[in-house]
Amino acid sequence: MNELSVIDVTDQRPTIEEWGHRIERLLDGESNAAIFNLRADDDREFDAIFLGGGASGRFGSAYMRAMGGRQLIIDQWPFLGGSCPHNACVPHHLFSDCAAELMLQRTFGGSLWFPPMDGVITSIKEVVDLFRRGRIGPHAIMNYQSKEQLDLEYILNVPGRIIDAHTVEAAGRTFRARNLILCLGARPQILDVPGKDLKGVYTNVNLVETLDYEPSATVVVVGGSKTAVEYGSFFSATGRRTIMAVRSECLKIVPDGEIRGYVRDRMEEQGLEIWERSQVVRIEDDGEGRVAGVIIRTPKGEERVETNFVFVALGEIPNSEMAADVLGVEIGPKNEVIVDSQLRTSVPNVYAVGDLIGGPMEMFKARKSGMYAARNAMGATIHYEPKDFPDFLHTHYEVSWLGLGEEEARAKYSNIVIIKMPPNNPNGLDVALPASDRTMLYAFAKPHMSGYQKLIIDGDTRRVLGAHHVGYGAKDAFQYLNVLVKQGLTIDQLGEMDELFLNPTHFIQLSRLRAGRQDLVDL
Amino acid sequence: MNELSVIDVTDQRPTIEEWGHRIERLLDGESNAAIFNLRADDDREFDAIFLGGGASGRFGSAYMRAMGGRQLIIDQWPFLGGSCPHNACVPHHLFSDCAAELMLQRTFGGSLWFPPMDGVITSIKEVVDLFRRGRIGPHAIMNYQSKEQLDLEYILNVPGRIIDAHTVEAAGRTFRARNLILCLGARPQILDVPGKDLKGVYTNVNLVETLDYEPSATVVVVGGSKTAVEYGSFFSATGRRTIMAVRSECLKIVPDGEIRGYVRDRMEEQGLEIWERSQVVRIEDDGEGRVAGVIIRTPKGEERVETNFVFVALGEIPNSEMAADVLGVEIGPKNEVIVDSQLRTSVPNVYAVGDLIGGPMEMFKARKSGMYAARNAMGATIHYEPKDFPDFLHTHYEVSWLGLGEEEARAKYSNIVIIKMPPNNPNGLDVALPASDRTMLYAFAKPHMSGYQKLIIDGDTRRVLGAHHVGYGAKDAFQYLNVLVKQGLTIDQLGEMDELFLNPTHFIQLSRLRAGRQDLVDL
Repeated sequence: MNELSVIDVTDQRPTIEEWGHRIERLLDGESNAAIFNLRADDDREFDAIFLGGGASGRFGSAYMRAMGGRQLIIDQWPFLGGSCPHNACVPHHLFSDCAAELMLQRTFGGSLWFPPMDGVITSIKEVVDLFRRGRIGPHAIMNYQSKEQLDLEYILNVPGRIIDAHTVEAAGRTFRARNLILCLGARPQILDVPGKDLKGVYTNVNLVETLDYEPSATVVVVGGSKTAVEYGSFFSATGRRTIMAVRSECLKIVPDGEIRGYVRDRMEEQGLEIWERSQVVRIEDDGEGRVAGVIIRTPKGEERVETNFVFVALGEIPNSEMAADVLGVEIGPKNEVIVDSQLRTSVPNVYAVGDLIGGPMEMFKARKSGMYAARNAMGATIHYEPKDFPDFLHTHYEVSWLGLGEEEARAKYSNIVIIKMPPNNPNGLDVALPASDRTMLYAFAKPHMSGYQKLIIDGDTRRVLGAHHVGYGAKDAFQYLNVLVKQGLTIDQLGEMDELFLNPTHFIQLSRLRAGRQDLVDL
Repeated sequence: MNELSVIDVTDQRPTIEEWGHRIERLLDGESNAAIFNLRADDDREFDAIFLGGGASGRFGSAYMRAMGGRQLIIDQWPFLGGSCPHNACVPHHLFSDCAAELMLQRTFGGSLWFPPMDGVITSIKEVVDLFRRGRIGPHAIMNYQSKEQLDLEYILNVPGRIIDAHTVEAAGRTFRARNLILCLGARPQILDVPGKDLKGVYTNVNLVETLDYEPSATVVVVGGSKTAVEYGSFFSATGRRTIMAVRSECLKIVPDGEIRGYVRDRMEEQGLEIWERSQVVRIEDDGEGRVAGVIIRTPKGEERVETNFVFVALGEIPNSEMAADVLGVEIGPKNEVIVDSQLRTSVPNVYAVGDLIGGPMEMFKARKSGMYAARNAMGATIHYEPKDFPDFLHTHYEVSWLGLGEEEARAKYSNIVIIKMPPNNPNGLDVALPASDRTMLYAFAKPHMSGYQKLIIDGDTRRVLGAHHVGYGAKDAFQYLNVLVKQGLTIDQLGEMDELFLNPTHFIQLSRLRAGRQDLVDL
């Protein structure tokens, strides 16, 4: 293979702005030069090559480097950070922020300072364009931070090709390391029906890369996963009729039934149509290679939906092919690379991390598995298994949870105590609490929209078993609350905490109202 | 004294909606009947009378009742919950939510779906009216919850008059108890200058009660406290020229200098004029008893500002007079009732709690002091001192902090490590991180507006000494993070947590990038 042209930044110190311009030019295809950031003054063997510089590879590299090891990242993109800031979590957060904002504006349209929004369809393309232009910013920070602050070595904008368990080829050169850490990520699962390749069929990946028209006033989302719900909510918030075709049930990931019901009701109130036990069987061609409609098999028979836009969110498939073909690493039933609790594959000195090893395909697991693989590769014997983690999804709201839902808690414990807001009361949801930042206008004008929250307690040990929140501003809290719950947090300890009133999670104060009782009861 | 008419709800079970209607009629002055909710089937002596049913009295009562004690709340308002939902924290949160929303709409006015906002002044009165109508909702919940769920006894809509340490008169009847717990709150400090009584001079209390016109295009805020900053930011966000006249310095409460600078820069960027070392010396009369202008003594001399609206936020004075006059409880220099760590006043069997005992006049202290007084009154010997609590304020942003600022940390520790976002870099703030829910649009179009955050670590012990955040969605997290920090949280433990990416506090992942190092360094 010929050597490709190389941009050697080793002795440069590009600013974030300069990185931005460079990444933009490379993404625009002005050059296919590889970026080399390799230390000339370090002739030690690499402790590991991280094949892939997404969350798992970058965090694993940072940890290895912090420990004093030598690492090399090789990534096909001209930036570090992987899919998250390019076409996954970051755009998703932008779209979800727009969904929350548009729901507010539609709810209050024509009152206060909000313009009327009835019948207004807002642009999806403009938000996608905003993302596409702006994503260079986070990319540039990752390259800058990784070089100037984390002291990482990397080769970007060129695919790495595995030669053997110690050798990777990139840009016509071969690189050797004591260990190989595979960070190859995953790709969206394809909807395998006639018409799947028509223009107008999107996943989160090609949506932000290629959307060049305004979707029609009706759109179809395929799937009931987090991603489906998140994008569906955004499309709906733009004012489009949005049909979610879900093979089984929507929102299955939300563990508490009552919370799931509240979330679903609010989605439907915003106009989302959730068609469960329904499958897309065919996508129609308009005669020019574009989507003209979708045929959906529903429990009531086949329905045709006229649309030029189908969004597919059926989950992700690990990119394990090269590792399986070249190295023979063992692969599981979902195409994932099988690893043990030290992140070791079936091949000595080869580790795998991140989405490549299967679910949960979450950021914390990507980063932490990278970190643990690095520690093991550096000689530690240390185990990692993602469990008892908090979780969330976006609709127009933020929905956060940790621990058990009520149903599972009742199945496991005989004395379950529920503390929730709004309370069980004859007015149902039509009460102005809970409320806090970003739901205050709802609380004062549309109380049933101001959120729902619930704490599940074992009345015998007084320990918190689960926490659930719909609203805003609690997602971050669940990270820390989860640690306390795993420590054995009791209602009494919660009642001793210092709330920052109006706190999005009303758990502290509600616990305090009950904590004086020896025999706990619901609130 | 004649007995007043009484609405006896003891044997009724009003719904939240019914409570709302009742409270509304009583607040409108249709009747001055007292509400009695007294158990007929319980002839035990009261363990305590809580004089005042705000946060401290209601939470103290709930705790005492939960312990099996008998309590009575007497409050002059027709609802429980006190000033917070009536004219303090709740309206403040509504206004701060509007400030955040208006900043977003102004920043993006004319792009995406946002209408142009240049030169548009939005109504303050409409938001106040919305609050005034809507506040009945939270009031009704408090009455409902206190009666139907917490089983509290209370007398509302009539002032309680202290007779002695065991006796209070209300509605012409006397009530005796083993203990008296004073929960009399505080009132805004008056600006003592000529013109202070003109129509158009407001505090948070009379603003929501009496505002009946639209403030002029220029307004003046007096003070540099939390409340001043919060209301000033809202007024500014409505499009009005807003001048904050601050005797000394603004934002002194924010412990970290860099964070304080970022917060202030954003306030000024939104158009707020902060006049420090400046004092209002006179408010001018328009000849009809209304404000026409304000004379402010500044370091550059006297300035006249034409306005019909002055908002005074100079702090709060405890309502200690009746207790001092009748009982002779000892009073401190700020008019506060002096208590020991058991919340006992200088008079046996008389406790004082909440804002009445002085700062910090925060919700958690009100509620927890009520709870601790209840436990002591029930025979426990238990101490309460508010310390090492997290704190926050609102500008157009949420600003949260806990522990030490950088300056104080460096004075106390020799090896301080700073982890922050945006990083120190040649582009300054003009980078797209940090970002998360509610700042995504900023990150993609106005990066310097997407927030600022900082973690302060002792490099020797690796423990977190302080955390600081400007943005949204972290306020709630600081409640729980503060508990972990007080446990001795280290950078290594942070790096083991499971983030809910994009998390508003980027502390977990930033810590993980450094935690592999034995010798910690800044990031």
